[in-house]
Amino acid sequence: MKQIPGGVCAAKGFSAGGIHCGIRPNKTKKDLALIVSDVPCTAAGVFTTNLVKGAPVTLCQEHLKQGKIKAVICNSGIANTCNADGMEKAVQMAEICAEAVGAQPGEILVASTGVIGQKLPIEPIQAGIPELLKSLRATAEGSDDAEAAIMTTDTVPKSAAVSFTLQGKTCSLGGIAKGSGMIHPNMATMLVFLTTDAAVSSEMLQKALSMDVRHTFNMTSVDGDTSTNDTCVILSSGLAGNPEITEENEDFAVFMQALNTVTVSLCRQIAGDGEGATKLLECRVCGAETEDTAKKLAKSVICSSLVKAAMFGEDANWGRVLCALGYAGVPADVNKIDVTFASEKGEVMVCEMGSGVDFSEEKAAEVLSAKEIDILVTLRDGDASAVAWGCDLTYDYVKINGDYRT
Amino acid sequence: MKQIPGGVCAAKGFSAGGIHCGIRPNKTKKDLALIVSDVPCTAAGVFTTNLVKGAPVTLCQEHLKQGKIKAVICNSGIANTCNADGMEKAVQMAEICAEAVGAQPGEILVASTGVIGQKLPIEPIQAGIPELLKSLRATAEGSDDAEAAIMTTDTVPKSAAVSFTLQGKTCSLGGIAKGSGMIHPNMATMLVFLTTDAAVSSEMLQKALSMDVRHTFNMTSVDGDTSTNDTCVILSSGLAGNPEITEENEDFAVFMQALNTVTVSLCRQIAGDGEGATKLLECRVCGAETEDTAKKLAKSVICSSLVKAAMFGEDANWGRVLCALGYAGVPADVNKIDVTFASEKGEVMVCEMGSGVDFSEEKAAEVLSAKEIDILVTLRDGDASAVAWGCDLTYDYVKINGDYRT
Repeated sequence: MKQIPGGVCAAKGFSAGGIHCGIRPNKTKKDLALIVSDVPCTAAGVFTTNLVKGAPVTLCQEHLKQGKIKAVICNSGIANTCNADGMEKAVQMAEICAEAVGAQPGEILVASTGVIGQKLPIEPIQAGIPELLKSLRATAEGSDDAEAAIMTTDTVPKSAAVSFTLQGKTCSLGGIAKGSGMIHPNMATMLVFLTTDAAVSSEMLQKALSMDVRHTFNMTSVDGDTSTNDTCVILSSGLAGNPEITEENEDFAVFMQALNTVTVSLCRQIAGDGEGATKLLECRVCGAETEDTAKKLAKSVICSSLVKAAMFGEDANWGRVLCALGYAGVPADVNKIDVTFASEKGEVMVCEMGSGVDFSEEKAAEVLSAKEIDILVTLRDGDASAVAWGCDLTYDYVKINGDYRT
Repeated sequence: MKQIPGGVCAAKGFSAGGIHCGIRPNKTKKDLALIVSDVPCTAAGVFTTNLVKGAPVTLCQEHLKQGKIKAVICNSGIANTCNADGMEKAVQMAEICAEAVGAQPGEILVASTGVIGQKLPIEPIQAGIPELLKSLRATAEGSDDAEAAIMTTDTVPKSAAVSFTLQGKTCSLGGIAKGSGMIHPNMATMLVFLTTDAAVSSEMLQKALSMDVRHTFNMTSVDGDTSTNDTCVILSSGLAGNPEITEENEDFAVFMQALNTVTVSLCRQIAGDGEGATKLLECRVCGAETEDTAKKLAKSVICSSLVKAAMFGEDANWGRVLCALGYAGVPADVNKIDVTFASEKGEVMVCEMGSGVDFSEEKAAEVLSAKEIDILVTLRDGDASAVAWGCDLTYDYVKINGDYRT
């Protein structure tokens, strides 16, 4: 497993691009992305569980059922959600894209992100197609352009890729992601576009993705709000030449590991770039009775506004961690919990067996001054563990969200 | 039902007081409160559902089981939670208070609020008793002193009282409350001390309180964090002279109404004074299939960080309301939802049948510039309704919680 550059274009057969077509008023901000495969791909996706779903989400679910996928088109600026004509517009985007890349509309995945409830103008997308096609490149730069075009309040681009070997064939898997606010995925997340040249059947691709997101994107939260447009899709061109993975064999395990390496990296990038965030928080729970309990405890800590604000203030207010564990809604022996704060600057145990221990506030402040904070929670209830990712709650989160539309 | 002054001393037989005894370093801040009844009271309580419970919560639950209650003692500054010697200290507080007011330790309710995990010094409490007894008054001033002593990050005192008639006898019911952060009660809330002179059996008092908090304190949220020390208790001196309420008769209904008037007032005061809040938010959901669904929808809106931040920015970003309704985890036909923002400055419908409608942004900004904002959500799924109270998310919430301990 080797980290490589290239993002969503790292795998053989994929090119990507992005342009400003005019959906966003700011002309320096790209707002339309395209990812195209040289060949029809097996594909899989997971999507928001929010009952209020963006029209593109519903369309993607339909198209994935139909079969292979050739391209993904995505706009930022407007979410195409809660509009009476949302589905009509999403279908038009698929049709326009299909004509541009020489495919059927059913072979196109469509995504939108931005303000909910505003009507999506289709004209800029139609008019932008020639320039969008010209922007396509099968390189890291192409991936970067596509990434730039899907960002909203993100402050940094997010991408990752790895190479690995299946039956002697070198394969790659990479992707791009956007997401900074309204990030609390359930069953899927924000916008994540993954590509691989490893040959994997659609069925196994779906199995791999569904298994993976439970431990990765579904364990990431910026603000507790599950978006209406969460979308995570993966396309496989199969151009690496490995025998197609069609069952849970050793190759599948290697593939899952490659997938997990890329998704964990993207989760950390998303949480660390949470709206207004200055710190990436990682909560590791171990010693829980079941994995479900461990997951809920870790997520409860990462979602607590009070924990998040304390981390912003670099204040070792561990009582808030205990409090969040206590209201997580799962059984845990709260009298047998240890809590340690850790970072590259060291670690400090603050709570043992559910009660405070004497610790150096100076040392704690030093540990919490780092950019990445680990909150380590140890129970004595069993041997299950989980990890969740989040970020601190800052003035800038309020600033960004106090007036997002204008 | 008539609003009256007097707070927790409005009912006959109750006096209250508060002093600075030295638990908090700031000498100008009262930190020890006492509420005493002239006679033993029937009593009832509801408490936090957090698995991590303050020692005083456990002690109160034990004492309420034993029988009548004579007094409530409460300190602020330290929560007496997550300490190895927490229960020992809570018992000592009860013993000290019992001796001071001439009662048995089992007739004392104990509460603490403040930082979790610090050891509670008992000496200042013991030493403060003579001055605390001297501060007792059966007046609005006595109530105010007790209220001042239980406040933490609260910026305004919170009290309410009403008078009502039972079988020709004038009765009163009033109370005080504290709560500004870590406010997301479940089964009980923050600290709320209620007193009444209406004669009500302990059993019916518990029934009334348990029924009421489901619609009041349990529908209030500042930050989604369920405290470890939530406590809401009610004492009845019975000195109004009405025939004791021992069943769900007409008198019980009148009493419930009096209780609800006081608790709704306290909920609004608590939400409006949420940490850093500039606005009180009230979300009314109607047309839901069941009351449970209506409650969960209303609470989901009030808890959304994105909705809260938009309200701070006076931005009619109604898509976030739809988003919060969609992830509430209850069935609702999201294509048949209307949303209206309303305040004393007028109202503006922003969403009809799940889709945006054209509205004047100017008018919306005017409506949202008020201090109290109503978010009205109408479904077409049934005839159940619910109300939830919250507040906006502001820079000051972050400031207050970024460095609470120092």
